[in-house]
Amino acid sequence: MLIPTFSDVTSAHERIKPYIHRTPVLTSSMINTLAGCELFFKCENFQKAGAFKARGACNAVFELTGSQADQGVATHSSGNHGTCLSYAAKRRGIACTVVMPRTAPQAKKDAVRGYGGRVVECEPSTSSREAVFAEVVAQSGAEFIHPYNDHRVIAGQGTCALELVDEIDDLAAIIAPIGGGGLISGICLSLSSKAPTISVYAAEPEQADDAFRSFKAGHIIADDAPNTIADGLKVPLKDLTWHFVSRHVTDILTASEQDIIDAMVLLWKRMKIIVEPSSAVPFATIMRNRELFAGKRVGVIITGGNVDLEELPWQRKARVS
Amino acid sequence: MLIPTFSDVTSAHERIKPYIHRTPVLTSSMINTLAGCELFFKCENFQKAGAFKARGACNAVFELTGSQADQGVATHSSGNHGTCLSYAAKRRGIACTVVMPRTAPQAKKDAVRGYGGRVVECEPSTSSREAVFAEVVAQSGAEFIHPYNDHRVIAGQGTCALELVDEIDDLAAIIAPIGGGGLISGICLSLSSKAPTISVYAAEPEQADDAFRSFKAGHIIADDAPNTIADGLKVPLKDLTWHFVSRHVTDILTASEQDIIDAMVLLWKRMKIIVEPSSAVPFATIMRNRELFAGKRVGVIITGGNVDLEELPWQRKARVS
Repeated sequence: MLIPTFSDVTSAHERIKPYIHRTPVLTSSMINTLAGCELFFKCENFQKAGAFKARGACNAVFELTGSQADQGVATHSSGNHGTCLSYAAKRRGIACTVVMPRTAPQAKKDAVRGYGGRVVECEPSTSSREAVFAEVVAQSGAEFIHPYNDHRVIAGQGTCALELVDEIDDLAAIIAPIGGGGLISGICLSLSSKAPTISVYAAEPEQADDAFRSFKAGHIIADDAPNTIADGLKVPLKDLTWHFVSRHVTDILTASEQDIIDAMVLLWKRMKIIVEPSSAVPFATIMRNRELFAGKRVGVIITGGNVDLEELPWQRKARVS
Repeated sequence: MLIPTFSDVTSAHERIKPYIHRTPVLTSSMINTLAGCELFFKCENFQKAGAFKARGACNAVFELTGSQADQGVATHSSGNHGTCLSYAAKRRGIACTVVMPRTAPQAKKDAVRGYGGRVVECEPSTSSREAVFAEVVAQSGAEFIHPYNDHRVIAGQGTCALELVDEIDDLAAIIAPIGGGGLISGICLSLSSKAPTISVYAAEPEQADDAFRSFKAGHIIADDAPNTIADGLKVPLKDLTWHFVSRHVTDILTASEQDIIDAMVLLWKRMKIIVEPSSAVPFATIMRNRELFAGKRVGVIITGGNVDLEELPWQRKARVS
């Protein structure tokens, strides 16, 4: 297990600067009044390819040696990592293959292809994905860039927290969503060196609370098929992210599906930003734990903005009820 | 007619700084590729109360003398100006009355009241509005702050262009929507002193193209009841805004309703920002006039983000067709 260090984060920042946005930090007095604390939203929904994952993907891709790069990169992902890896590969001018279940949304496949990546479909099962992926790697010799359990990816994600603490003073805490834990690990890595007094909170849907239960149990618990609107947060922790989560996270907070939808609507309405459901989870948990954050200055990572504008959750809900 | 000067804009900027956001300027390579030029979006949808009109309203309210302020402010507006004036009055701790047709959307009335303003309803006709408004002013002695035909408001709106040219070098043009012309007048005022080589384009819906026709005819033409999805842009030019528009605007460009909806969807999808229909008009006209802007650096003012999330125009359209 290769554990990244703080200097990997600062090197990553230099390496990826030409390929990423330095995203703005937005605030809203109305939201602060509602939450009872001062929130600073780091808007990675404005990041290249629409998600913070462009940071980790770019770091991994641009860290490859020339001969590694010649063979391209590959991953399995039905979410933002596939799109972001495809973006990064395009910027370096190398091949990228993303293995996706054939049932993945057309928009996600189109997004990978939009940056020139190749989509290889598998059946929607772990065994099929692993078999197809192994074949892709065997044929192409491509470098596997795991969505989160990868030291290069974690160092890249850590740059987001670096920018936030550079810009905003006196934060008491930073909170971000947790799925596989790549972003949270990057935040832990950055803060433990750069600003060790800042607490790190992870936010998770109640209906996919494997990280929460892992944290309480003291070992990784992986769920079979969690079901949540926050579809970026269904994946389990792995050894490398567990290393950081178990050592540096202050606490993991959860929110119900309705909390997440309510938080998403509030962010859209008050902040005028498009955030995907996963990105609304931290704010949802703050609203449920107001006493914990009362009067404090808190950084919130808005992780991405990739949503289907034809099918918004509050409308879906309205149609069903 | 009190014509504001450039020093009124710089004074306005100092005066309103504590009450407004310095909004970020966002870019998107994908949007640039589609448009064939470099676009810099000044995001006033993130402004206080959700629109650039907070600038003019704050400038007008904070420029009042103590005894003027004691009597409060009043306006007629069924749009963002009413909300923004109410916001500004709240910040100064004075009364604000907004006359609105009883048929105005409930959300707009709630927004005014949300900042502590008083809504007085009139019938949806000019005669009723004028009669009710005259009564409000007679009773309260409140200072009338016109939504755009007011030197204090225009000087306030001009601060938006000031920030944009301070931040972004070498702009060839700035483009903004035109309704009554308050924002465009402020831009003309700022640029004619600060950066006279930058062209000023105004963007208007085809279905409410009174400013376009006025500009071509050389005198103000006011329409009776224009109908467009860009509901902030239905009002006519007035003497003070005509002064600036007729002297300093390079050209007025128009877009169809479908162009505006398409532009709005593209901005939501690619920029991850919530923009109201009026704010999509400049980008819609750029997409229709690509040869005009080819390869240039162009500032685009995103004027506001106040939309009804339950009723989005592309969905409304889908339901009808």
